[in-house]
Amino acid sequence: MTYCVALRLKDGLVMLSDTRTTAGVDHVSTFSKMHLFDVPGNRAIAMMSSGNLAVTQSVANLLHEGVELDGEVYTLRKVPTMFKAAQLVGAAIRQVYSVDGPQLEAQDVKFDVSMLLGGQIEGREMRLFQIYAAGNFIEATADTPFLQIGEHKYGKPILDRAVSYDMDLFDAVKLALISMDSTLRSNLTVGLPLELLVYRRNAYKIALHRRLTESDPYFRMIGESWSAALREAYRAIPRPDWAAE
Amino acid sequence: MTYCVALRLKDGLVMLSDTRTTAGVDHVSTFSKMHLFDVPGNRAIAMMSSGNLAVTQSVANLLHEGVELDGEVYTLRKVPTMFKAAQLVGAAIRQVYSVDGPQLEAQDVKFDVSMLLGGQIEGREMRLFQIYAAGNFIEATADTPFLQIGEHKYGKPILDRAVSYDMDLFDAVKLALISMDSTLRSNLTVGLPLELLVYRRNAYKIALHRRLTESDPYFRMIGESWSAALREAYRAIPRPDWAAE
Repeated sequence: MTYCVALRLKDGLVMLSDTRTTAGVDHVSTFSKMHLFDVPGNRAIAMMSSGNLAVTQSVANLLHEGVELDGEVYTLRKVPTMFKAAQLVGAAIRQVYSVDGPQLEAQDVKFDVSMLLGGQIEGREMRLFQIYAAGNFIEATADTPFLQIGEHKYGKPILDRAVSYDMDLFDAVKLALISMDSTLRSNLTVGLPLELLVYRRNAYKIALHRRLTESDPYFRMIGESWSAALREAYRAIPRPDWAAE
Repeated sequence: MTYCVALRLKDGLVMLSDTRTTAGVDHVSTFSKMHLFDVPGNRAIAMMSSGNLAVTQSVANLLHEGVELDGEVYTLRKVPTMFKAAQLVGAAIRQVYSVDGPQLEAQDVKFDVSMLLGGQIEGREMRLFQIYAAGNFIEATADTPFLQIGEHKYGKPILDRAVSYDMDLFDAVKLALISMDSTLRSNLTVGLPLELLVYRRNAYKIALHRRLTESDPYFRMIGESWSAALREAYRAIPRPDWAAE
């Protein structure tokens, strides 16, 4: 399993992924799920992946090497717009499906992949897309500024309650880490280290790309402070007046 | 969908269920999922149900009318121990499966049911069980004092972080309501009104059985206070010292 979350906010993008891959409980490995396609000064694009590892690695490789779209071959470092970038990821997924899909299905393995693609190309809008296994996609908006793939439910309530499009980027980093911490606690197949990326709008270069291990003091502090704050918060809520019945 | 949560604590039981049933987005109804089998002074037993409504109603009816177990016919008001009560629920599920299961499967409808059964019979231990569609079951312990059925993921992080076996019963009511509120916000197929039950250990009668509608001032206050407390809590966490990079 996997958990990846991305927020597209007024000031920029925050993207966070775990690194655990599992093929049964006794085959647990660490693979990066965050793929960078940046050309400083011209573009910063990052893709996070969820699903069958062979499929997601093939898709990422194609996006580095070149995929045909509308009669031309592009990579994510060359594609002219973010919309075309999302189309290109969709085309890469469809290409992998055309090669591997039938054989996977013949062996009862689901063709399971989804991607979050965020970034900005010089002179264009900063955008965030979620691309599905069929190669189609949706886009985050100011109304719905975050997207999630993989094991998304445990970490969603805090985002539903606290995310706003205007929030500070590093407040959003805190929320993403809290959302991830909730997921890590509840699902063993989501695991450390984490990969965190922050992009500031109109910078055309990545502001921060950082790996957080279990010994990272800030991430440990987040988990501990958050648990303590939640316990304090529910204690502060008064008991119902029908409690005495 | 459904969300039901039950906590077996030092001082008693807390059980909470929603009431929404859906058969497609345009067929939404309200059905109680909490079934009481109490004989004040002798026993208080409650069962919460998740899954196909025709199956769960059949199981509840059988438990009122009588199910054969080890050559005798029992109801939940007559069964001598909570362990036998859990076996009886399992037997009722298997009986419904033997009648309806093959036809449901022939029509590609999953035989989908699970139950939480909590209570105490005079002179015996207070116990809480989760019974599966196969009729087998597990029991809550002091290490794992809560069990959930249905749409359990959204509401689990707060329970994972804050539940303890020794906590006050009405603090547990608050936690169960917070857990439910998180689920209601994230999944439209879980809906109000709620049904709440509180049982005090060795009382052999139900301490509180209350229905909470959307106009209930306490439940509204919980949702609002909790959102405010979470926003305050994440604001209070300092930003990382690598925020300036």
